[in-house]
Amino acid sequence: MPYHSAPLDLAFHALSDPTRRAVVSRLVEGELPVSALAEPFNMALPSFAQHLKVLEDCGLIASEKRGRSRWCRLVQPRFEEAADWMEAERRRWTQRLDRLEVYLDNKEMGDDRQE
Amino acid sequence: MPYHSAPLDLAFHALSDPTRRAVVSRLVEGELPVSALAEPFNMALPSFAQHLKVLEDCGLIASEKRGRSRWCRLVQPRFEEAADWMEAERRRWTQRLDRLEVYLDNKEMGDDRQE
Repeated sequence: MPYHSAPLDLAFHALSDPTRRAVVSRLVEGELPVSALAEPFNMALPSFAQHLKVLEDCGLIASEKRGRSRWCRLVQPRFEEAADWMEAERRRWTQRLDRLEVYLDNKEMGDDRQE
Repeated sequence: MPYHSAPLDLAFHALSDPTRRAVVSRLVEGELPVSALAEPFNMALPSFAQHLKVLEDCGLIASEKRGRSRWCRLVQPRFEEAADWMEAERRRWTQRLDRLEVYLDNKEMGDDRQE
């Protein structure tokens, strides 16, 4: 399991901000020019650009210049890596709770028999 | 969708550190006293306690004193909330890619017909 993964550190750090999560969420629907991406946020463009830089540095998004606009898109592997980590832990947890339930059920039946 | 969620901010921030992810990962298997939890980490106890504090402040773990030990356990709702956010975005993304594939398949068939 990749516990000591700098990319994961950076990805989770990037997702710890509501503006950056909202950017990810918009780009899930498809690529967008920075101007359109920035529009719903009540934020100066340099501050918004700083958030995009955090997302780009950690590999969650990529951008490219097309004519006079810069377009952003989500990059799947980094997002999948973070989502996979969460899901793997959730699955282990659910499995443990299931085992615990079976154990308690069996114990209860055993207790019933002894009464 | 909870984009502007301080709890989510804190949960993702907590998960942006490899030691804290490893703590979460160990507690998935069940509750542990701090001493046992700290054992695999080559870290001074005050530094480790600081990591536990970050996890506890954001509600990912809880701890309680029992006799001379402090025991830690994972707290499900906060972890689920973060995992749910990731999964919801991943699902939307997968659906978009599926729609895109159908569109491109249809377009290709249309192109074939016109040849």
